[in-house]
Amino acid sequence: MNAAIIGATGYGGAELLRLLKNHPVIKVHSVHSSSQQGKELSESYPHLQQHPYTLEDINPDRLAEEVDLVFTATPSGVSSKVVPQLLEAGCKVVDLSGDFRLLNTGDYEKWYKKEAAPLQWLENAVYGLTEWVNREKLQNTQLVANPGCYPTATLLGLAPLVKNSLVDPKSIIVDAKSAVSGAGRTPNLVTHFAEMNDNFKIYKVNQHQHIPEIEQVLKEWNEAVETITFSTHLVPMTRGIMATIYANVKEGILASEIRKAFEKSYKDSYFVRLRKEGEYPSTKEVYGSNYCDLSFSFDERTGRLTVVSVIDNLVKGAAGQAIQNVNVMLGLDEKTGLEFIPVYP
Amino acid sequence: MNAAIIGATGYGGAELLRLLKNHPVIKVHSVHSSSQQGKELSESYPHLQQHPYTLEDINPDRLAEEVDLVFTATPSGVSSKVVPQLLEAGCKVVDLSGDFRLLNTGDYEKWYKKEAAPLQWLENAVYGLTEWVNREKLQNTQLVANPGCYPTATLLGLAPLVKNSLVDPKSIIVDAKSAVSGAGRTPNLVTHFAEMNDNFKIYKVNQHQHIPEIEQVLKEWNEAVETITFSTHLVPMTRGIMATIYANVKEGILASEIRKAFEKSYKDSYFVRLRKEGEYPSTKEVYGSNYCDLSFSFDERTGRLTVVSVIDNLVKGAAGQAIQNVNVMLGLDEKTGLEFIPVYP
Amino acid sequence: MNAAIIGATGYGGAELLRLLKNHPVIKVHSVHSSSQQGKELSESYPHLQQHPYTLEDINPDRLAEEVDLVFTATPSGVSSKVVPQLLEAGCKVVDLSGDFRLLNTGDYEKWYKKEAAPLQWLENAVYGLTEWVNREKLQNTQLVANPGCYPTATLLGLAPLVKNSLVDPKSIIVDAKSAVSGAGRTPNLVTHFAEMNDNFKIYKVNQHQHIPEIEQVLKEWNEAVETITFSTHLVPMTRGIMATIYANVKEGILASEIRKAFEKSYKDSYFVRLRKEGEYPSTKEVYGSNYCDLSFSFDERTGRLTVVSVIDNLVKGAAGQAIQNVNVMLGLDEKTGLEFIPVYP
Amino acid sequence: MNAAIIGATGYGGAELLRLLKNHPVIKVHSVHSSSQQGKELSESYPHLQQHPYTLEDINPDRLAEEVDLVFTATPSGVSSKVVPQLLEAGCKVVDLSGDFRLLNTGDYEKWYKKEAAPLQWLENAVYGLTEWVNREKLQNTQLVANPGCYPTATLLGLAPLVKNSLVDPKSIIVDAKSAVSGAGRTPNLVTHFAEMNDNFKIYKVNQHQHIPEIEQVLKEWNEAVETITFSTHLVPMTRGIMATIYANVKEGILASEIRKAFEKSYKDSYFVRLRKEGEYPSTKEVYGSNYCDLSFSFDERTGRLTVVSVIDNLVKGAAGQAIQNVNVMLGLDEKTGLEFIPVYP
Repeated sequence: MNAAIIGATGYGGAELLRLLKNHPVIKVHSVHSSSQQGKELSESYPHLQQHPYTLEDINPDRLAEEVDLVFTATPSGVSSKVVPQLLEAGCKVVDLSGDFRLLNTGDYEKWYKKEAAPLQWLENAVYGLTEWVNREKLQNTQLVANPGCYPTATLLGLAPLVKNSLVDPKSIIVDAKSAVSGAGRTPNLVTHFAEMNDNFKIYKVNQHQHIPEIEQVLKEWNEAVETITFSTHLVPMTRGIMATIYANVKEGILASEIRKAFEKSYKDSYFVRLRKEGEYPSTKEVYGSNYCDLSFSFDERTGRLTVVSVIDNLVKGAAGQAIQNVNVMLGLDEKTGLEFIPVYP
Repeated sequence: MNAAIIGATGYGGAELLRLLKNHPVIKVHSVHSSSQQGKELSESYPHLQQHPYTLEDINPDRLAEEVDLVFTATPSGVSSKVVPQLLEAGCKVVDLSGDFRLLNTGDYEKWYKKEAAPLQWLENAVYGLTEWVNREKLQNTQLVANPGCYPTATLLGLAPLVKNSLVDPKSIIVDAKSAVSGAGRTPNLVTHFAEMNDNFKIYKVNQHQHIPEIEQVLKEWNEAVETITFSTHLVPMTRGIMATIYANVKEGILASEIRKAFEKSYKDSYFVRLRKEGEYPSTKEVYGSNYCDLSFSFDERTGRLTVVSVIDNLVKGAAGQAIQNVNVMLGLDEKTGLEFIPVYP
Repeated sequence: MNAAIIGATGYGGAELLRLLKNHPVIKVHSVHSSSQQGKELSESYPHLQQHPYTLEDINPDRLAEEVDLVFTATPSGVSSKVVPQLLEAGCKVVDLSGDFRLLNTGDYEKWYKKEAAPLQWLENAVYGLTEWVNREKLQNTQLVANPGCYPTATLLGLAPLVKNSLVDPKSIIVDAKSAVSGAGRTPNLVTHFAEMNDNFKIYKVNQHQHIPEIEQVLKEWNEAVETITFSTHLVPMTRGIMATIYANVKEGILASEIRKAFEKSYKDSYFVRLRKEGEYPSTKEVYGSNYCDLSFSFDERTGRLTVVSVIDNLVKGAAGQAIQNVNVMLGLDEKTGLEFIPVYP
Repeated sequence: MNAAIIGATGYGGAELLRLLKNHPVIKVHSVHSSSQQGKELSESYPHLQQHPYTLEDINPDRLAEEVDLVFTATPSGVSSKVVPQLLEAGCKVVDLSGDFRLLNTGDYEKWYKKEAAPLQWLENAVYGLTEWVNREKLQNTQLVANPGCYPTATLLGLAPLVKNSLVDPKSIIVDAKSAVSGAGRTPNLVTHFAEMNDNFKIYKVNQHQHIPEIEQVLKEWNEAVETITFSTHLVPMTRGIMATIYANVKEGILASEIRKAFEKSYKDSYFVRLRKEGEYPSTKEVYGSNYCDLSFSFDERTGRLTVVSVIDNLVKGAAGQAIQNVNVMLGLDEKTGLEFIPVYP
């Protein structure tokens, strides 16, 4: 099974290469870039010494012939242009950008401030939150919209609550914190080391483009959900996301029912690790792995629930989940090639 | 004006020394420790080369004679024992621990899991959130309970809202993030560098001892407040706290009214810097200084307000506010000796 | 092929578990601790959720029966006691401590300030710097002394120069910098986060116990070497070592000869990556992998050579090289189970 | 006494503002920029809220009239153009760039790869390593070339040895490590947070432009010095430089003589703190202050000396030393306005 990676010079693309190195079925056939064809990838990424990849141009027809699958790790606004060409040429695509996640083009244009992808392809995309996706649909689609990093952490934490109507749907607040690699590889002042080190920042307050993505899925799960409050912060670290999630528990719901809902939701999900009561995950405990660790605390004083969800933003939040989706598409065990123990410390 | 520092081997005590170095009125007369008398402070803190301080024992009667004021930067559970002796000997005391902040001894014992200080002294303590304290009372008290680091950031962010009844008192959620120096100088696994670097942790979920302190003040300001939800996280950085505060705005309240309430609240407060609309502070922007920077965003989609409050946990959250309180006690300008520009970058 | 890990609660032991997770031949049969038997390893290391290991006591006879190999990741001073018991019971042992590296017991006692291991076992140990070891000896030994982290980086950088007599043997200076995980998992003030973050420290100046280890090997390679100068520093990061090595090039030696010596030395060494001229490795470029990246610059102004050598201290500097040694012992390709692309960023 | 700052948008300029805030004699009259006139400085540096400075253009004649002194914190290649105009208009100038440090224009052009400043002004510049400058000359010059950050740390460490001929002048090797703020405020991939965090890099091997600056001063002190080996590394931290310096001690020189030379050299130098035997400074111990902390170890095994020198690159390595020089020029105590206790932790 051959795969191509488009956008291999970004962190998401480089992480796909790292994770696929030892995958028993999926092989990286070629890497592509719209602007750097002919260049060795190891010039951009010296850690890839001995792993020679020459960047090639993007030729949809040739790709359709040569590979079984294309990962597009291109930025939002680029995928919307590149992916339709690939699809029309007949490629199967897993897109890591935000361009095929929102069904409503008006939402996309409002939050991304860019032109939306063609509606026909939006309607065909399957949103690949692997633990909750319809696996049959996933196996039959030509296009997977791989979830965003923040939505992955948030939705895995909220699913048992929202699907089972355990919390007040109007009360959901998500305070999310991300490592700086989430901001990509293009240098700018916000992510300049001397500005970001020993610093903690909040950004895009009430304006993050992952808000409509999360709301869309929550509404699909439970139509009582309308809006959520969602904040994003930058932590002076390289990898990891923690979403601290707050919601009012509905009258009469017991802590034990909440635990049961979590346990039942994830009893067959290898990559979701429900932590025992009173133990909370830190981001490093999933570093470099495809795990999402979850825990929660029900505060009887306030009637409010606090859920903690951590992932590695580049793995479960991007490249790892993309591979997990492909595993399912191929009918493989979803764990195939992804059973890494986190890098600790 | 002579001051003594008890507990100078902790970070709070060392910060008092740094800040008082150039204070035009308050001079550090002596430093004290219950366990390390006779030792040079520069053995513990080599950055104090050329600033010779020999640690002395704690003799309340001698202190009452020799100094005008004692800062107790001792841990909770120690202050409750040491401070009453100092008070009885006639000393004026500014206590940086949590031991004299909670009026209700039952609350103290529940949250701190230690024996409370004697009620008579609790009743005489003035809670020194300088911007909101009754300054006359502060000038006449023998004992100042210096606020905690988290409560300082949180209360300065909430005061305009709670005092003016602009938000639903049942809806308050505070997601707080602290630098690691807040955990003190005693080594342990949680704050071991290899465990904490490139990591983000949540701790004491719904159990932090600053919860009753915040609630007590909020209730005093507005009796409609009962409980709040308050979470604490550790950020891999040395100094700084950010409190991200959420509350539902009351029906009919406009964003402009909220801004006016903030502006009016802090128009005479040199150390509170209200940032302009759409601009949010990061922790580094107050590093090493006594400032609290505030901003907020009212989200009309959700009807919810997000307030951002940052301080340096060791300055405005501890030693700086203690000095600010003493300035007021002495009838000086509150800024005296505290007009530092933040250390940036 | 079954292996046991003694000392699994330290960073070296935990890293063995991580790396062996996907090893096709070596399986971790059991983990052992002298002090925490009965405890789940995931209590110490929550990142090991779903990887259940119960710590067992250390029973040499049972180990000799049940496993083919024992990794001892115990501290110096402990291995010298435990390993002889294992050897006498018949186990094959790869020891990650410093206890079996120095042939001269006097040297050990002088530099380690502890009692040396029994001479009989010291004489039987094979020093496992895999790229330069006598592979036949390695395959036939009962005991491998796995090299120290600093010596690995240093010796791989110096080997081509010292073996080929290209530099003045009296002129060697090694300025080494290590991540903080090298200091182990026991909390102390030096590695307390608030003390180590945003800080750079030098330690054990001219007294590091890896000095005699490096000198012993260099002398074995070239008897003209007597002493070297070797300094160690702590970098505020989690993983990685850089050794910056200085030496005077012998009269008449050309830069091209030096390059040839490096190329020839490592042409068959998969894990040593000689970087191209003018390109220097940073530690992150080998993070989480078993690579050692090397580069050098010959300065004609001064006649001096600067060699740069980087490794991940926990992989090539400890657990990774231990597995590489076992691969060779078993007659496997040395790369088996170790072909990880570095975790970047 | 009024001063102007040209280049206030860089880190050096911002640090001048911070340090001068409480200077009793020197007042910042105006701040200037060639490209951002009219802009508020607090737009670039939000930590300067309440410290309003509007960036003005650079008008040499008006500056000559309005201020007593100009600090030029402009980059190399810019100072060489701006400073002569200021000097011709009659301004006194302290230049923080490298443009007026090298007497030999050929050296400048070789190492900086830019056009040198006019020779007439180079000859009039006084190199302001305050501890060793001819103070009479400093008081009478119109132009101070403020030393580079690396040269300051290196030269203060080497002065007692080189001036007293205690070491072999051909044997000097300096392994220097710098915080990332030394690379300035312009974002690029090297200093991008996700690339630099948890990473340690070497750069400009044998090519750093501070090499000829150090050699020039050493030769002036002792003509036997010809070349030195000097390496530069980036540490994942915000502020601080450590220079680890190696040299062969001359035959017959005793450790006690070396100590005496250090003691004598710096007995009247408030900002140089010679640490006691066996104690070595870390960079954080001078953070935010104008101190240079020194220590050394003489290794009798090798006959080699290791000197450790630490500074804050933005203070003693830039803005602090510039102010120290102005204090001397004005006939003030060199400490005036600079007696900060380091920010610790």
